[in-house]
Amino acid sequence: MKMKQYQKVYQSIRDDILHGFLTKDDQLPSIRQAAIQFQVSKTTIEKAYIMLEDEGYIYACAQKGYYVLVDQDALTLRRQLLEPMQQEQPKYRYNLSKQAIDKDMFDFSIWKRYLKNVMELQDELVTYGDVIGEQSLRQALSQYAYRMRKVFAYPENIIVGASVQVLLYQVLALHDKKKIIAIHKNGYVQAKRVIKDLGHTIIFYETLTKEFLQHHHIDILYIQHPMVYLNEKEREDILLWAQQNNTYIIEDDHNGELMDFHHIRSAWQKVDIHHIVYIGSFSRLLPSSFRISYVVLPKSLFEIFNKQKIQYSPSASKIEQLALANYIIDGHLERYVRKLARYYDRKSQYVYEMLRTIFPHEQIELESVHLRYLITVEVYNMDELDKYLKNNGVCVTIKHQKLVISFAGSTQENLYQALQIVQSALLQCR
Amino acid sequence: MKMKQYQKVYQSIRDDILHGFLTKDDQLPSIRQAAIQFQVSKTTIEKAYIMLEDEGYIYACAQKGYYVLVDQDALTLRRQLLEPMQQEQPKYRYNLSKQAIDKDMFDFSIWKRYLKNVMELQDELVTYGDVIGEQSLRQALSQYAYRMRKVFAYPENIIVGASVQVLLYQVLALHDKKKIIAIHKNGYVQAKRVIKDLGHTIIFYETLTKEFLQHHHIDILYIQHPMVYLNEKEREDILLWAQQNNTYIIEDDHNGELMDFHHIRSAWQKVDIHHIVYIGSFSRLLPSSFRISYVVLPKSLFEIFNKQKIQYSPSASKIEQLALANYIIDGHLERYVRKLARYYDRKSQYVYEMLRTIFPHEQIELESVHLRYLITVEVYNMDELDKYLKNNGVCVTIKHQKLVISFAGSTQENLYQALQIVQSALLQCR
Repeated sequence: MKMKQYQKVYQSIRDDILHGFLTKDDQLPSIRQAAIQFQVSKTTIEKAYIMLEDEGYIYACAQKGYYVLVDQDALTLRRQLLEPMQQEQPKYRYNLSKQAIDKDMFDFSIWKRYLKNVMELQDELVTYGDVIGEQSLRQALSQYAYRMRKVFAYPENIIVGASVQVLLYQVLALHDKKKIIAIHKNGYVQAKRVIKDLGHTIIFYETLTKEFLQHHHIDILYIQHPMVYLNEKEREDILLWAQQNNTYIIEDDHNGELMDFHHIRSAWQKVDIHHIVYIGSFSRLLPSSFRISYVVLPKSLFEIFNKQKIQYSPSASKIEQLALANYIIDGHLERYVRKLARYYDRKSQYVYEMLRTIFPHEQIELESVHLRYLITVEVYNMDELDKYLKNNGVCVTIKHQKLVISFAGSTQENLYQALQIVQSALLQCR
Repeated sequence: MKMKQYQKVYQSIRDDILHGFLTKDDQLPSIRQAAIQFQVSKTTIEKAYIMLEDEGYIYACAQKGYYVLVDQDALTLRRQLLEPMQQEQPKYRYNLSKQAIDKDMFDFSIWKRYLKNVMELQDELVTYGDVIGEQSLRQALSQYAYRMRKVFAYPENIIVGASVQVLLYQVLALHDKKKIIAIHKNGYVQAKRVIKDLGHTIIFYETLTKEFLQHHHIDILYIQHPMVYLNEKEREDILLWAQQNNTYIIEDDHNGELMDFHHIRSAWQKVDIHHIVYIGSFSRLLPSSFRISYVVLPKSLFEIFNKQKIQYSPSASKIEQLALANYIIDGHLERYVRKLARYYDRKSQYVYEMLRTIFPHEQIELESVHLRYLITVEVYNMDELDKYLKNNGVCVTIKHQKLVISFAGSTQENLYQALQIVQSALLQCR
């Protein structure tokens, strides 16, 4: 924003104080003198002086004028506090490791309109939100989750939060008793943190075999779809096991809307609403900066939460919640997500073909919900590869012997150029 | 928003399906027929049919036409999901129990401008935020906290989160070892929940006497200012005790900016930045719906958090963070908060005078950071009083023998009228 005249005067004097040209108890020019000196009106000078006084830089002495208040001790700190911070992270020309979305797909102007409309609801905005989330959003989510993922989510059973992690702190603390929770060994690191923090016991699994489930006592089973990829029969077995042992399953449906792109599989929750806790989020659908997730609880669990809810504070922004509610109700989210899924399908095919040329014999694996490919490259020195890529402006995540290529957030042209560099890196580091 | 023609067609057919006038496998009119029937163009009908197909209401059969897809089982649920929810909470004409702000004091149009400007930063919005908060906001907060509360907060030591509670889950889990944490017996209920969830031990105190501190082993002392109201000497003793025992103090400076209104006391943190964890929030300054709080950690603790930060996800809305950063940098927040403090000071005096007339002999206590008065009324039947007030449209929180009168969020006229009803309630229920 452009600086106003009084701000310029304010800043000039403040800088003189910070640089030590004016020191404690020095007298400032009178308002009349300063007005001539700065070539502005007396009102402007007055405004600047009031601001300096307000912020503790100067003090007024009746009938005498204005004096500097700041002493040497305060100076050093003030100077440091006003200095801009250095950028910490290096920037890469081609960043294939970022978790972003393709911004051209999202219509910011529509979203802006919804935010703007919510800003008119001043009575809503001056009060706290409901801990379980805004009623209109829970209502909209119940329809959205049903249409997109076939989830049976009554508004009364939904809790909205700023992140999946915040919701997990609430869901996994519903009972006082400590639990034994099974989670995939490569599972969501933020979920593991919550389980550990709350004092539960973690068991890791790699594949959800019958043997695993029968040989361990498990109170809660945490599944994430790309990791737990089972056919109908295997799924039925697990659900039967959950019923027989009265075990809860937490179904973390992270970006489930993008699963397998156009032939979308529905969530497990619809099969057993009494044992499945469903978690939905929008982190790769809506711009990743929006912080809204939701959980659908079985009725019995929701009732427990509802009794404890006074012990929690709302976490998701009310403005964003109300805007999202209207955005969903008007059908925008559903249309956008369906369009997005088709688009990423095409884009993943395009990237696959490029990768196949570069890696003709390697195993290439698509993780659709994460919008990335995993390529197993056995024969390379990964440290050297990483270094070469970074030196040439390409940032790629490397996990053991796997290259992780995220294709969202970069244009096709950028991806093409970046993969050319990957190709020459491979020649270099073989 | 006004419904478009294709939406009307869509809704009309959808309603016919939901009401059972069209049942599974019934054929829909052809596009040409429907266009005549609804008096709209064929394109409009096509658009509506595609939407119905997208949402799983109908299916297309090549060369034959469109048929209803939804069966009886799905109908009941869909109908319920589309029904509006009932309002749960009763509304009162005069609500003196709400935690709100005086909305006329906050300039929504300025804030809207800042939100709007941030909406232009599309590259920022499509990526995740930093777990510790946006750099520009941490920089702005470091200046704000120093100017308003004399807190020494380097941007590098600040973590931003959606709520104090979310931040406490992070701060109180920095060490693996379980701690003994002392908190005021009427302390922040959300903090107690976190302490309990994380498996720490709670000790309650009523007043922070030397005896209390010496006779208990305490790892962390949690203080909130209106509850822990000590003179300089007492404060020094506690800080000395903290240094000697290497105990952390969590200073929850909830609305500290409003403490004692114009003659603002500074926070404790400035005295010992190595042992004090400072928590700031805006819940009664900015409209309560904004979800941004921050914590200033001693350097040693921040370094531990920084190593673990991959295990957490950002919780505060990035849009609101970036808007707040610019709002602070341009000086709006500081000017607004100073104006607000002066305003609440005048308002509290006005309310005090009214209360004194109604309660000439009772103890009337101001809690400035909570913007409320506590009135101890010994001789009344509180259940009866509560009932009478609610029947007459007044909602007041009653705690044991105390009436809690929140004066923010209501106009002076409303407060006057509500207190008239309180006065007649007293006559009735004596």
